[in-house]
Amino acid sequence: MEALERLLIDLSDIPHTTEPALVRQKSRDFFWYSPVLNRQLHGCSAQAVISPRNEADVVRVAAACFRHNIPVTARGGGTGNYGQAVPLHGGVVLDMTALDAIEWQRPGMLRVGSGRKLIDIDRETRPNGWELRMHPSTKRTATIGGFIAGGSGGIGSITWGGLREPGNVAAARIVTMEATPRVLDLREGEAQAVNHAYGTTGLITALEMPLAPAWHWIDMIVAFPTFMDAVRFGYAVALADGIVKKLLTPVGWPTPDAFRQVRAHCPDGHAILIAMIAEPSVAAFKSVLVRRHSSGTITFERPTAEAQGEVPLYEFTWNHTTLQMLKRDRSVTYLQALHPAGRLLDSVAEIETLFGDELIPHLEFLRVGGQVTASGLPIVRFTTEERLNAIIGDHRARGVSIADPHVFTLEDGVGHKQVDADQLSFKRHADPHGLLNPGKMRSFRAVE
Amino acid sequence: MEALERLLIDLSDIPHTTEPALVRQKSRDFFWYSPVLNRQLHGCSAQAVISPRNEADVVRVAAACFRHNIPVTARGGGTGNYGQAVPLHGGVVLDMTALDAIEWQRPGMLRVGSGRKLIDIDRETRPNGWELRMHPSTKRTATIGGFIAGGSGGIGSITWGGLREPGNVAAARIVTMEATPRVLDLREGEAQAVNHAYGTTGLITALEMPLAPAWHWIDMIVAFPTFMDAVRFGYAVALADGIVKKLLTPVGWPTPDAFRQVRAHCPDGHAILIAMIAEPSVAAFKSVLVRRHSSGTITFERPTAEAQGEVPLYEFTWNHTTLQMLKRDRSVTYLQALHPAGRLLDSVAEIETLFGDELIPHLEFLRVGGQVTASGLPIVRFTTEERLNAIIGDHRARGVSIADPHVFTLEDGVGHKQVDADQLSFKRHADPHGLLNPGKMRSFRAVE
Repeated sequence: MEALERLLIDLSDIPHTTEPALVRQKSRDFFWYSPVLNRQLHGCSAQAVISPRNEADVVRVAAACFRHNIPVTARGGGTGNYGQAVPLHGGVVLDMTALDAIEWQRPGMLRVGSGRKLIDIDRETRPNGWELRMHPSTKRTATIGGFIAGGSGGIGSITWGGLREPGNVAAARIVTMEATPRVLDLREGEAQAVNHAYGTTGLITALEMPLAPAWHWIDMIVAFPTFMDAVRFGYAVALADGIVKKLLTPVGWPTPDAFRQVRAHCPDGHAILIAMIAEPSVAAFKSVLVRRHSSGTITFERPTAEAQGEVPLYEFTWNHTTLQMLKRDRSVTYLQALHPAGRLLDSVAEIETLFGDELIPHLEFLRVGGQVTASGLPIVRFTTEERLNAIIGDHRARGVSIADPHVFTLEDGVGHKQVDADQLSFKRHADPHGLLNPGKMRSFRAVE
Repeated sequence: MEALERLLIDLSDIPHTTEPALVRQKSRDFFWYSPVLNRQLHGCSAQAVISPRNEADVVRVAAACFRHNIPVTARGGGTGNYGQAVPLHGGVVLDMTALDAIEWQRPGMLRVGSGRKLIDIDRETRPNGWELRMHPSTKRTATIGGFIAGGSGGIGSITWGGLREPGNVAAARIVTMEATPRVLDLREGEAQAVNHAYGTTGLITALEMPLAPAWHWIDMIVAFPTFMDAVRFGYAVALADGIVKKLLTPVGWPTPDAFRQVRAHCPDGHAILIAMIAEPSVAAFKSVLVRRHSSGTITFERPTAEAQGEVPLYEFTWNHTTLQMLKRDRSVTYLQALHPAGRLLDSVAEIETLFGDELIPHLEFLRVGGQVTASGLPIVRFTTEERLNAIIGDHRARGVSIADPHVFTLEDGVGHKQVDADQLSFKRHADPHGLLNPGKMRSFRAVE
């Protein structure tokens, strides 16, 4: 009998499937944004999907998989773009979405199962006056556990910084991958062991998340003659600490031409700034526009609406910007750049000039280490992998760091090609045989 | 009959006094922190104090004073340190404290009479979940109008920046000083015309102030072996956008020896960091301390308490730090420095080394133009005016700007010796004869 068959017998009371179409579907994420990853990860699949009902099930799965030496790849909403949730060496996909209970809410803090969708968290916290500090553009489908394991920041990071900033993850409860799995509560700094580690350092079952006061958000589009006009205004607002904001996204033409639901608010040939501004700060936002950046025109102003059938503007930002373009033209791809805070405007202008039409610019303002800067997520008119790598090199040569979205390991995503030393060392204890999402932390060697 | 007598007859139904002791008391502020100002402003006094009951009274006073050519100096709590509320040319002090009504509160916004005390504003907004974004250390006695007219920021500015940042003053209602006074609503950017103008550009009767979500604040003292240890930890917290804070104040020894009510929590020979941290962020604050700045020891941790008889830690910070020292030693004075954000730690260390025991260091972390930096309010062991000016020059030569607290004009307070051009131009329309707090905006020439 195969190891997998024995495993499923051991765990027969836990919901699972080996139905190939389903397993294949749950083995994929949005890696196909990258033509490179699309080629590399195309055929990767687990052999089974197991859906634990609670933490006790997760402990049993971990113990059984350790015993049978079967890889486990945890999965939330499967909204990653780097193949974070794609099993490279088969085994089991662990669908965490049933662990979705809100354990408790306190003022400014929430404890929640890792499988709960982000939008379903906000739905419960907003009536109490709180909201998640940040979320990706996939708020409707992503889970909180998937966000911590595979994300880094998003809508809200212009105020709160990314998930890595001290204070943005209060605790993570994890199950280790050992003969007798341990359940650990990692608090504050310790929780960084599982932050953006693609599930290689433990199976996250619950999270304690610090919350932000919930504002009444207003979605705004401001149209500008040039991309740099939109950037300069966005930067002024980003630096204005008296203006409460959640999102500042300059997007160059012609990308807005692909924004179907708001196309009427995006004038031909114009760059736009998409913003989410707290209602009491809207007047200040307009005052800065009129007094200092008068080439801009507000074309859209409406409370953020995210019920079924509604389209919040954040679904045209972060990686949704790329997605909107991909809907129209499957040949494009994108990059993830981080401009140096100290010379932000010069750096952005330099990159825009350098690549002309080959890159359509798109920035996200955010805070990193307490400084305002911008992440670039340009649309790339893809030709060859060689040319894509040359473009990445051209960015890095100019001091713009690239989190390469065309690689699937933790190490290759960062410029210095090294995994976080604390995460690597933590993994030796939490997953000594290297069975958690194997291949993603390529520096790891199994402990004998 | 004297002009003043005629004026008081015209306004006889409005509360007023010419009783010398009272008038003299209401003609003073805390300028005596500076030995220089103490000498210069010692004998300055109005001839009368008028206490308008409402805006209509203010309009009548303005019209009558214009007619009789009598100077008007508006006054709130009289907590300024630069003689902001001291009449240089006699006339009338306008005591605004009766204009203290809260006109309305909305989520994130408040409209209030300029004479209301800051502590009495928070008392009304906190039950609704809101608080003022920032306040000076004189929260118990200062008024909101006085803060806008004479202040610049304070406790809260580490998160929200100063009053000058776009979005931090929503509107100011003012009465002009003309034959027929106008009542103007200055909104957003326009309101900068009266911000930190010492009441020279209009009589502020009401303000619309954007609010912050009210957190449950925890007062903390952390003791460190050296001042720079306290600075480095404070800076790390200042840059940690995930840690919600309202105050980060490193104070060098021996100043804490003068902090009577918390002296037991200030170990001999140690520098301290005073902090106000939101309750849900306290664990993250401690995590950064233990993991990265382990020379620090928490000696005090208690919810901020500001009822009568209680002593919130903010009463040992900003200019209260100086006050606590002055209570013990009337010979000291202070400076107000702003260190360059780009080389903050180096700049602070350089100044500390340069002056040795002559300056006892004290910083306030804050945001300016979207960047974290620190204001220095060192205690100066005063010898002569010449030496004080040399110390100021030594700061400026090293790129540390000084808002000189030993001068009483708007122009002399800033390094470039120029008044805000928009304020000067606004004053030509709002106070053409230069009757509002005359002598404070010395660049102004009366319009013929």
